[in-house]
Amino acid sequence: MKLSARNVLKGVVKEVIHGVVNSEVTVELAPDVRVTAIITKTSAENLELKAGNMVYAVIKASNIMIGTD
Amino acid sequence: MKLSARNVLKGVVKEVIHGVVNSEVTVELAPDVRVTAIITKTSAENLELKAGNMVYAVIKASNIMIGTD
Amino acid sequence: MKLSARNVLKGVVKEVIHGVVNSEVTVELAPDVRVTAIITKTSAENLELKAGNMVYAVIKASNIMIGTD
Amino acid sequence: MKLSARNVLKGVVKEVIHGVVNSEVTVELAPDVRVTAIITKTSAENLELKAGNMVYAVIKASNIMIGTD
Amino acid sequence: MKLSARNVLKGVVKEVIHGVVNSEVTVELAPDVRVTAIITKTSAENLELKAGNMVYAVIKASNIMIGTD
Amino acid sequence: MKLSARNVLKGVVKEVIHGVVNSEVTVELAPDVRVTAIITKTSAENLELKAGNMVYAVIKASNIMIGTD
Repeated sequence: MKLSARNVLKGVVKEVIHGVVNSEVTVELAPDVRVTAIITKTSAENLELKAGNMVYAVIKASNIMIGTD
Repeated sequence: MKLSARNVLKGVVKEVIHGVVNSEVTVELAPDVRVTAIITKTSAENLELKAGNMVYAVIKASNIMIGTD
Repeated sequence: MKLSARNVLKGVVKEVIHGVVNSEVTVELAPDVRVTAIITKTSAENLELKAGNMVYAVIKASNIMIGTD
Repeated sequence: MKLSARNVLKGVVKEVIHGVVNSEVTVELAPDVRVTAIITKTSAENLELKAGNMVYAVIKASNIMIGTD
Repeated sequence: MKLSARNVLKGVVKEVIHGVVNSEVTVELAPDVRVTAIITKTSAENLELKAGNMVYAVIKASNIMIGTD
Repeated sequence: MKLSARNVLKGVVKEVIHGVVNSEVTVELAPDVRVTAIITKTSAENLELKAGNMVYAVIKASNIMIGTD
């Protein structure tokens, strides 16, 4: 599938922590550049996510804010 | 300000495109790792965003999806 | 790509309206069930969206609210 | 209440799964068209959601992505 | 309609600015407490929003971040 | 950090409820104006959030809907 999301970032799963309904997935996009996603536990299981997997972090442009010092 | 957002990623503005209400801001987080944000034009102007600025891309963990091949 | 988004709904594009930065895309999921998405105009153009196209509406579970009468 | 959300879709609750803070609610919009929402458990309890209830799935247009094959 | 959104805040419209696809609506919730929403222009027109209207700002709990000094 | 989010609202934490992955934080912005945020438990702990703390509720304009009676 090709997506309208402007941000489809390739990376490697570093850690998966499961809650009851949600799971927290940390993905390394580049050395020292990591993002953490909260997805449903069902999705984490369906995708069989575990450390070392090559994945994409997908982010809609309207969900990113910009900050400055 | 310290934020609850799990993802506060340092980068450099590569491009700013203004619409009437919104602006599109592209930030380079690492070589070949870029994210595009849509923010209000008022915010882009308030932050005086332009190519070359050091900024942070801020993303709430619940707004990131994971994809696999 | 296989996605963590719990909601990947097949449908047909009914209408695409372009703004300067964003586009509005209406997708019919079933007779009388339509959803409208706002995506960046760049994405709408990249996906070459137009009425009649078979597409997927992708929605993260945490972005859906429930209402009752 | 009349809402600015472009997407207010009528459906029937198929399943409610409770976590500690969040609940997962599946709504059937049409035969074979289902959406899953994550809402707070407090909200699920306030709305007394259970299978068989007629509800609305409410989605802001900016929270829908489009995918193509 | 009763909503799962935890945040349904009563206020008064202070300003509406229309773009091509989106509109920006500022709502005063209390003296010196204002929120600005971006909604589709179609929605702003359907709701006939203008300064002085009594409205609700509706925000899903998962879309709020917390910051500290 | 200065943020593109149009809504950075000062308030006082009234309650923090922890789940396994997420926490629910209620903030009073003015007398009778409260918002509830769901953030990751890790963030709630990092910010050492507890009742009485002065904090900011940060909300992107595109994540607010408007409702009318």
